[in-house]
Amino acid sequence: MTADNKVSGASQKTDPGRFFEHFRIGEVIRHATPRTITTGDVALYTALYGPRFAVQSSDEFARGVGYARSPVDDLLVFHVVFGKTVPDISLNAVANLGYAEGRFLRPVYPGDTISTVSEVIGLKENSNRKTGVVYVRSTGFNQNGDPVLEYVRWVMVRKADEAAAPTGEHVPQLGKAVAATDLGGAVPSLNVGAWSNELAGSRYRFDDYQVGERIDHVDGMTVEEAEQQIATRLYQNTAKVHFDGHAAKDTRFGKRLIYGGVVISLARALSFNGLGNAFHVAAINGGRHVAPLFSGDTVYAWTEVLDKAEVPGRADVGALRLRTIATKNQPCAAHPYKVGDDTDPSVILDFDYWVLVVR
Amino acid sequence: MTADNKVSGASQKTDPGRFFEHFRIGEVIRHATPRTITTGDVALYTALYGPRFAVQSSDEFARGVGYARSPVDDLLVFHVVFGKTVPDISLNAVANLGYAEGRFLRPVYPGDTISTVSEVIGLKENSNRKTGVVYVRSTGFNQNGDPVLEYVRWVMVRKADEAAAPTGEHVPQLGKAVAATDLGGAVPSLNVGAWSNELAGSRYRFDDYQVGERIDHVDGMTVEEAEQQIATRLYQNTAKVHFDGHAAKDTRFGKRLIYGGVVISLARALSFNGLGNAFHVAAINGGRHVAPLFSGDTVYAWTEVLDKAEVPGRADVGALRLRTIATKNQPCAAHPYKVGDDTDPSVILDFDYWVLVVR
Amino acid sequence: MTADNKVSGASQKTDPGRFFEHFRIGEVIRHATPRTITTGDVALYTALYGPRFAVQSSDEFARGVGYARSPVDDLLVFHVVFGKTVPDISLNAVANLGYAEGRFLRPVYPGDTISTVSEVIGLKENSNRKTGVVYVRSTGFNQNGDPVLEYVRWVMVRKADEAAAPTGEHVPQLGKAVAATDLGGAVPSLNVGAWSNELAGSRYRFDDYQVGERIDHVDGMTVEEAEQQIATRLYQNTAKVHFDGHAAKDTRFGKRLIYGGVVISLARALSFNGLGNAFHVAAINGGRHVAPLFSGDTVYAWTEVLDKAEVPGRADVGALRLRTIATKNQPCAAHPYKVGDDTDPSVILDFDYWVLVVR
Repeated sequence: MTADNKVSGASQKTDPGRFFEHFRIGEVIRHATPRTITTGDVALYTALYGPRFAVQSSDEFARGVGYARSPVDDLLVFHVVFGKTVPDISLNAVANLGYAEGRFLRPVYPGDTISTVSEVIGLKENSNRKTGVVYVRSTGFNQNGDPVLEYVRWVMVRKADEAAAPTGEHVPQLGKAVAATDLGGAVPSLNVGAWSNELAGSRYRFDDYQVGERIDHVDGMTVEEAEQQIATRLYQNTAKVHFDGHAAKDTRFGKRLIYGGVVISLARALSFNGLGNAFHVAAINGGRHVAPLFSGDTVYAWTEVLDKAEVPGRADVGALRLRTIATKNQPCAAHPYKVGDDTDPSVILDFDYWVLVVR
Repeated sequence: MTADNKVSGASQKTDPGRFFEHFRIGEVIRHATPRTITTGDVALYTALYGPRFAVQSSDEFARGVGYARSPVDDLLVFHVVFGKTVPDISLNAVANLGYAEGRFLRPVYPGDTISTVSEVIGLKENSNRKTGVVYVRSTGFNQNGDPVLEYVRWVMVRKADEAAAPTGEHVPQLGKAVAATDLGGAVPSLNVGAWSNELAGSRYRFDDYQVGERIDHVDGMTVEEAEQQIATRLYQNTAKVHFDGHAAKDTRFGKRLIYGGVVISLARALSFNGLGNAFHVAAINGGRHVAPLFSGDTVYAWTEVLDKAEVPGRADVGALRLRTIATKNQPCAAHPYKVGDDTDPSVILDFDYWVLVVR
Repeated sequence: MTADNKVSGASQKTDPGRFFEHFRIGEVIRHATPRTITTGDVALYTALYGPRFAVQSSDEFARGVGYARSPVDDLLVFHVVFGKTVPDISLNAVANLGYAEGRFLRPVYPGDTISTVSEVIGLKENSNRKTGVVYVRSTGFNQNGDPVLEYVRWVMVRKADEAAAPTGEHVPQLGKAVAATDLGGAVPSLNVGAWSNELAGSRYRFDDYQVGERIDHVDGMTVEEAEQQIATRLYQNTAKVHFDGHAAKDTRFGKRLIYGGVVISLARALSFNGLGNAFHVAAINGGRHVAPLFSGDTVYAWTEVLDKAEVPGRADVGALRLRTIATKNQPCAAHPYKVGDDTDPSVILDFDYWVLVVR
């Protein structure tokens, strides 16, 4: 063997990721790596967050109400679909700015294979010319080529060359909320008579929830570094801020950041306490990671019912539009959100989404 | 959106759990959430504790000796059945006092769905009137409605209102040990000729063990916070003392407690070294969590053979009644248990159970 | 119950492991515990290291190119086969010295059951007479009795009795590298036309790699104690240096060592960035754990292409002989390996292996 420290022969085969000026409006990116989701992934998801929704936990319960078996948790699907986009979209991102128009379109079952395609739907260079905002609509497909989830996200990406001209400029108009007519594609027609409140763990159904109602989910969950790394790798998400503790020492935080998807999944799992029959995340209207979370922090959450809607053609389920606020190191009995005009410093997530609740 | 810090609209939908005065003798509680156990759960169980019993590890070994395939580890079944009871029984518990009359009744295989029903069989208010002891017999069922496990536990539960009168008083008589005639329901008739000591990892069979014999299991296992959280969530156990590090700062320990089931499973896995052919936990006679375990502590274990018994009608297996003592940060070469009349301060678990050993 | 601190009745049933003088050349050891590998194990492997090779990630991709479904990651197979040997071979080891002649012979699929047999092929007492080197050829078999992997390792093992004479002496001649004619048994004939570079995540195929080329895999991965314990137990590897933090306090490192297999798997997963179409580890020519890794350290890796070879009779794949160097707390842009005649102090792994790359 002849290795020494000469860098002759150094390869350029490593993927540096796209920078802002490399994106083009209308470009379609087919992402690596397709991923078969298994009951192993489901077990890990349960172990990482502790969800207790009966449809996703029990094949028997799921079959009884009308599914083929327990579907994969909606947010596990979201994280897997999202994870594939990271190497192509956000490897050089400064910040993940927001989500919109997210819809869950078909159930995903263990054994299904998920791949993701993104279309660049908007670009806007920042005035400092060092970065720009990239808007993508990402769609997850199953092995039959059927879409299972789509959503828009926008992300601030560095430029490789400040002098480079942007390839275009367009800021897409995005809906404030998914329409109720667009909900429920991932839920079969339910046999409501087979739904047991006792087994599901909640006696409150759709009609029991009121617009404006606020629910403190009470429980707290502390996050450890090993947990967030295990979770983020499960989704094959490669964003280095979550994994490289050595490099993190030189960042402004001085440590690894917890993947925002971990916060969303924890908040959803905590929300079982108060929303046990809200068995399905049907749409993501918007979401913002307000502040970073670190290992050792404890996550709490509370929810406000923003809206209620019938789902056209369905007597089995109704839709609640929820805002779930997650905090760190601050219980939510007082529903912390704003302090005057500012966001309460404990708030880490502001998540606006539709759930379906059995009627 | 209109959220602010007003608590008008605050919901009472969160489940606060039952307090002592809410329990009634004879009450039957059907717990949420049914749970399908999968090979994913089995993989996590292996990864969390490191068990090496061949029946549970190898489908081929299990089939060869008479199972349909590898059954799910008995203690994984126990933890799942137990976990379901927490929101209804012990959310307001001060202490988990003991177990008795635990019996494993049928094998559980990956794909089976487990649910739990508890009957309140005893109540006894404490003299301080602030707490009382609740006795429940909990039974885990599979998807066919067949019982797979039953056990009694008693737990000290807070009262919501000190002035409230207890709803009844009865202290049940509980057996000191399950009878040998009641063992073995979860084990098919074994083809002993197919049992390989080499593959099973032990040359000692039932006849090789003597009453009074003590076995130091030698190895130690340090427990990390992430591991105990992942384990406890896997069982959908929601006891907050295991998860909320922020609230734990204000407790007398100042940190999260490790779920006692983690200690039982670690002690069982460590006991492979000396008890490799004791492939099945058939009954739990009694168990006491003598002292708490915390992240960073190292668990060791030793076992005494308390009794031996034939299992009526079975020439394939015999039963050993074992007491396994787990310690923290103290190897067990000297079999630590008592210091004079007191328990050795290193002792954390005193577990009395029956195992079946191949003959 | 009668337990006290008397050690009368103490048992000798615990397995102390073999010492150097207990091994005999030609001895064949059939190891406990057979292990059925499931999609649960695969999910954990993904979550622990983050591999993204499409063949192992997607059943659809695997089927499209010619596999029955996604095969189990080669290194997960290696760690499981290896783990079984620990209680018999290296429980009293001072150091794991090297690997050679490793070949992956058949694909392993979820549901397959793996067992391991080792033959002692060499012994050499050290001049200090306190230790000796044991050479074993270990073979992993599936449930049909077909070999799936074989490799040689040698390990320095303590003597129980310094005065004991060695049972023999022989130092086997081991190949420097597996011959290209011996590669590929674990890979079916591939339908290259179905291989999508986009889905696989790399546009570089066999012909694009040059001997002497060096690839910095760029990304870093920090390892946590919980992760390495979960990983090592998943393989049922019982080497106590990875688990017993209490005993580790009295060692020269003062803390637990991370299992070397964790480093190999991390380096392989990191190597995806630059080697995405190198979907299969076909052989292990040699490997050396140059320095220990501890919790909190960050692993980086770079690779040099040592050789290229046609695989006789196959137009679908070609073989690259790679040396992958893993470092700790030192990014690899400068390909650290030697400092003068010494190994760079950041280097922890020097791994020489063949991969197959699609053509």
